[in-house]
Amino acid sequence: MISVIEASNIFQKHLKLKPLGLVHPIYADRDYPPFHRVMMDGIAVSLNDYDSGEREFIIAGIQAAGEQALTLDDKKTCLEVMTGAPLPNGADLVIPYEHLKISSGKAHVIVESERRLFDNVHLKGSDCLAGEIVLNEEAAFIGPHQGIAASMGSTFNLHQGSRILLVSTGLELVEISEKPLDHQIRRSNVYALKTSLELRGFQVVDMNHLPDDAEVIAKHYQSVVAKYDILIYSGGVSKGKFDFLPNVWRDLGVQCHFHEVAQRPGKPLWFGTDKNFHTTIIGLPGNPVSSLVCLHRYVLGEKPLFVKLAKDVFFKKELTYFLPARLESKDDGHLWATPSEIKNSGEFTALAQTHGFLELPASISHFEKSQVFPFWTWRPFL
Amino acid sequence: MISVIEASNIFQKHLKLKPLGLVHPIYADRDYPPFHRVMMDGIAVSLNDYDSGEREFIIAGIQAAGEQALTLDDKKTCLEVMTGAPLPNGADLVIPYEHLKISSGKAHVIVESERRLFDNVHLKGSDCLAGEIVLNEEAAFIGPHQGIAASMGSTFNLHQGSRILLVSTGLELVEISEKPLDHQIRRSNVYALKTSLELRGFQVVDMNHLPDDAEVIAKHYQSVVAKYDILIYSGGVSKGKFDFLPNVWRDLGVQCHFHEVAQRPGKPLWFGTDKNFHTTIIGLPGNPVSSLVCLHRYVLGEKPLFVKLAKDVFFKKELTYFLPARLESKDDGHLWATPSEIKNSGEFTALAQTHGFLELPASISHFEKSQVFPFWTWRPFL
Repeated sequence: MISVIEASNIFQKHLKLKPLGLVHPIYADRDYPPFHRVMMDGIAVSLNDYDSGEREFIIAGIQAAGEQALTLDDKKTCLEVMTGAPLPNGADLVIPYEHLKISSGKAHVIVESERRLFDNVHLKGSDCLAGEIVLNEEAAFIGPHQGIAASMGSTFNLHQGSRILLVSTGLELVEISEKPLDHQIRRSNVYALKTSLELRGFQVVDMNHLPDDAEVIAKHYQSVVAKYDILIYSGGVSKGKFDFLPNVWRDLGVQCHFHEVAQRPGKPLWFGTDKNFHTTIIGLPGNPVSSLVCLHRYVLGEKPLFVKLAKDVFFKKELTYFLPARLESKDDGHLWATPSEIKNSGEFTALAQTHGFLELPASISHFEKSQVFPFWTWRPFL
Repeated sequence: MISVIEASNIFQKHLKLKPLGLVHPIYADRDYPPFHRVMMDGIAVSLNDYDSGEREFIIAGIQAAGEQALTLDDKKTCLEVMTGAPLPNGADLVIPYEHLKISSGKAHVIVESERRLFDNVHLKGSDCLAGEIVLNEEAAFIGPHQGIAASMGSTFNLHQGSRILLVSTGLELVEISEKPLDHQIRRSNVYALKTSLELRGFQVVDMNHLPDDAEVIAKHYQSVVAKYDILIYSGGVSKGKFDFLPNVWRDLGVQCHFHEVAQRPGKPLWFGTDKNFHTTIIGLPGNPVSSLVCLHRYVLGEKPLFVKLAKDVFFKKELTYFLPARLESKDDGHLWATPSEIKNSGEFTALAQTHGFLELPASISHFEKSQVFPFWTWRPFL
C-alpha cells in the first residue's frame, strides 16, 4: 500500500484536469486610466502658477466627468473639476475643495500645502498600458476579475475544460428522487462530487449509474471512454465480492497507477489511465465521506492551508488520518481547526458543520493542540 | 466624519440583507444510517460465538449491498458481507477479510484481536435520527451540503432573498458593450459588485444606469423604491458639483444614517433608509476599488480573517487604510498578506493579483511586518 504523498505525486504526474478558463488572456484595450483622471473634486490649475505664489484663481468653467477635456487658457484662472473628469489641458495640479474657499467666482487657496506635479491626478496609463495582460486564463468568478473584464469590454469567453463523467455504482443506490427501501440509500455521492468540481470551474458533463455487474460495467466503459477526458467512479473499488471495477479495468487494458493508499478514510482509492484514449480513470471509494475526501485531496489540484489544531487528537493506526474540522480565524493570526466529533469516518451528516478536513500524518499517533497541519477546504479559497 | 467601526455598527443595526436560503431546514427523512450498515468487506458472525472461542465459520451465504438483510441462523456459521450491506439479522460483529483465510467453504480467523460488539458496523441512527435537522437554512453550494440534501431526497428549494437593485451613475460611463470615447469609461463597477454579491447568495435583480441629472435620479428613485429591498448606487455621493444623490435622497425624505467615513479608499460612503418603503439605500463611491471595498467591508455581512502583514507599510493619514493584498498560507500556520504594489487607491487592475484587502487602523501610521490585521476576502471562505 502506498503513502498519501506517493499517491499525491502519482496523481500530479498523470492527471491533467483542466478547468473552464478564458480562451485568451484579457488584454488592456487602451491605457488605464485612458486619460489623466481627476481624483478629487476641486480646481485644476498650473503648478507653475501655484509655485509662483498665485493663491487666487478666477473660475473659468467646470470640467465635468464624461465631458471632453477643456483647456485652461490663462494664468490666474482655474477650472472646477469633478472626480472622474479628464484633467483640463494646460493644468497639471488639482487642489481639492477642502483647501479652498469659493466666492465671487474665484477660488481662494486657504490651506497651504506642498503641492507636486499631478497631485490628485490619476495619470493616463499608470495602471496599465494598452496591450498589457490584465487577466490571465485562470481568471475566476470573483468581483475584481469580473469587473476588470467588464471595464475592458471583454466578455468572459470560456474555453471548454476537461470533460468529466461521474459514475456511481452499487446495487444499494437509488435515484435521489426515489424513496429508498430500508436497505437502500440514495446516490448522493455524485451530487457532492459534482458540486466540489463545479465550484472550481471543472465541468461535469454527465452522471451515470451502474449496477454491480461486471458485464454491464465493461460495456458502459467501452461506450464512454472515448467521449470524456476523465471518468470518476464512486464505489466498487474495494475488496468485496461485488467490487468489479479494478478487474474490469484490468481486463480492458487500463493501466493502473495504484490501488489502495495508507489512509483513513479512502483506503480503496484506485487510479489509472486508458492509454488508447488518453482518458484518466479514477475509482473513488463508495463511502460518501471517503469519496469527497479523496476528490479534494488528490483530484482538485489545490494546495492545502496550514492551520493549528485546536485540541489533542489520538489516532493509533499507521494511516494518514483525514479528519473533518471546523475553522476559526482568531486574532492571533492563526486559523484554528476544531475536529468534528465524529463516531466513525462514514458519518456524512457531520460534514455539514465543517469547512474541510485536516491531514494528520501516518507517522504520528498523538497530535497535540497548537501543532500545525495541512487543511483541505470544501470551498475554493486562495 | 465617523470611524470605520462606527460605520460598521450602523450598518449592522440598519441593514437586513438576506441571501437566498433554504425555505426550511432539511430534516432527516429517516435514521442515518437507515440500517446497521456493514463498513468492511468480510464476514458477519455473532460476538457470542466468537467470545466462546469459535474461530472457524461455515459460510452460509453472501449478504450483498442493496439486498434485504439475510438472517444468520446457526452458531458456527457466518455470512460473507460487503461494505454498504445491511448487517444480517442475528449477527453483531464483522470480521474483515484481512483477518481471515477462506477455504473449503469456511472462514478461518487467522488474526487474533480484541473484538467488540458491532465492530465494523455503522449503527442505524448513529449519525442522526429521523426528524433531526441536518442542514439549516444557511446551507450553501458546497459539496457536503449538496450531498447531504441529495441523500435525504430533498431538493435545494430556495426562498427569495433580499431583492437588490444596482444603480451606476455618472455621465462618463458607457455600457460595457460600447467603445468608449477618450474621456469615457465602461460601467464595470456594477459587474464587480454583482459578482461579489452573487458569490454570497445575494440576489441582484436588476442593474440600471442613470445620468448626473437630479430630476432623472429622483424620478427613477420613486419608480423603484417600492420594488426592491436594497438599492445600491455607485457614484454620485461625493462633494462634486454633479454628485446629486445625497441631496435628492434628502429631498425625498430618505433618512441618512451617515455620510463619509474616515477611510481610504471609500470616504464618500453614504447610508440611509427609506422608512416609507423599508428600503435600504446605500451610496457607494464611484471609484471601482472604493465601491468594491465598501461593499465587502460593510454590506456583505462577513467576518474578517486575521492575517500577518508580510512587509512594513507606512500610511500617515488618520484614516483607516484598506490595502489590497495577496495571501499565502505558510507552514507556520499563518496566512501572510503581501500588499499589492499600488500607486494609488484607484488602481483597479492591480486587484487581479489579490485575494482581498487588509484593514489597517487609523490610529497607527507604521504597520510592521508580522503584526496581525483583519483581512476581507474577495471569495467567501468560512
